[in-house]
Amino acid sequence: MTGFQPDVASDDEIDREEAAFGPLAQAVRELADATIRSTVDPAIANDVREQVEALTARLRASQIDGSYGVPYRADGNSRPWGNAVMGLRNPIAPPLDVVTDPSGRADAHFQLGAAYEGPPGLVHGGVVSLLLDQMLGQAGGAGGHPGMTGTLTVIYRQGTPLFEELHAEAWIDRVDGIKTWVKGRINGPDGVTAEAEGIFILPRWAREILAKREAGGPDIPKQSYFA
Amino acid sequence: MTGFQPDVASDDEIDREEAAFGPLAQAVRELADATIRSTVDPAIANDVREQVEALTARLRASQIDGSYGVPYRADGNSRPWGNAVMGLRNPIAPPLDVVTDPSGRADAHFQLGAAYEGPPGLVHGGVVSLLLDQMLGQAGGAGGHPGMTGTLTVIYRQGTPLFEELHAEAWIDRVDGIKTWVKGRINGPDGVTAEAEGIFILPRWAREILAKREAGGPDIPKQSYFA
Repeated sequence: MTGFQPDVASDDEIDREEAAFGPLAQAVRELADATIRSTVDPAIANDVREQVEALTARLRASQIDGSYGVPYRADGNSRPWGNAVMGLRNPIAPPLDVVTDPSGRADAHFQLGAAYEGPPGLVHGGVVSLLLDQMLGQAGGAGGHPGMTGTLTVIYRQGTPLFEELHAEAWIDRVDGIKTWVKGRINGPDGVTAEAEGIFILPRWAREILAKREAGGPDIPKQSYFA
Repeated sequence: MTGFQPDVASDDEIDREEAAFGPLAQAVRELADATIRSTVDPAIANDVREQVEALTARLRASQIDGSYGVPYRADGNSRPWGNAVMGLRNPIAPPLDVVTDPSGRADAHFQLGAAYEGPPGLVHGGVVSLLLDQMLGQAGGAGGHPGMTGTLTVIYRQGTPLFEELHAEAWIDRVDGIKTWVKGRINGPDGVTAEAEGIFILPRWAREILAKREAGGPDIPKQSYFA
């Protein structure tokens, strides 16, 4: 467990990275979708695979060890670009474009494609919980109460459809010391599909950083989420 | 909401599809990992993106509408190859190789890479819930009590590390009519990282298929999971 790392990139470097690797991740998302849905001859699939392997080798010619982490800057902004739900550079992430409010709210509007399937034609129930965990964590962080998930409960009201407009929302319900209760839900074309409640707990290492912040030391992201 | 569709592919067609699209999905998983971790010059990333787009176009020359679904055969076997956790053809899926037992147990041993990150160096809390939802559903289905997730509760004991050997397990706790209570957990190098309990409910359309099965009609997968 490492915590956050300082972001040493310049504004210009960050802009260039975003402009190149954001669209690359989006292209890989499309490739993943096509990998599931394609009905081309297996010989073509084999040929595509060989070329994909060659492209991977080009990207791996220079790469970081391990995972992307969460670089953060002195101004409190962070770049969770590897995050499994939000990550600009993560082809697994839809990615969710979450709008937060300092009152402790988070909203996201999105559709999910073939890669998120569980039951036929429906979003995987676990993907529903994945998205809600992120939304709840974002709402807590936005309201000044960041934390790691302690308990998450999801109640499924109906299947969540693929290929339909969905709206996820979350809000802080109450706060007690290092614990924050956050609620949320996903709304589909036929109403609420799932509801969630989570208890988020500020981890010790983050408490230590926050204590240093109050003492005038290094900062952590303003809208941290550890979920 | 569609339910399952009959699998019209021949044994040979299924073998050829598996042999071509399984390795393709694995290659795209590696490409996704490299997309997150690469530090090559943005000009190279742009060039790779253009080639990825061309490969996607080749795959999309012939593709199904919508999602993969869950084709099932008269012998009760199914191919959930688009599934977000298990799918052979889904680059988003780790994929989990789940071993089930008719007593109502499911076990999986695996590692997770950079694409599954939440907090720095740790598996996203929502990914933990995603995997546990699938494991619980599999255990219920294996024990003859398939269902869609009704309620899922996850308690997080400690961070789940990336790049470490993990063992997920699930088992049926009790059954009452169309409701099945299933428990599970993820074990990491330092013990249990998360525990889960889920209530799975057999949906009406599946009950109708099961009724037809008892009347000698079309079958549904023996080890169904709808999660």
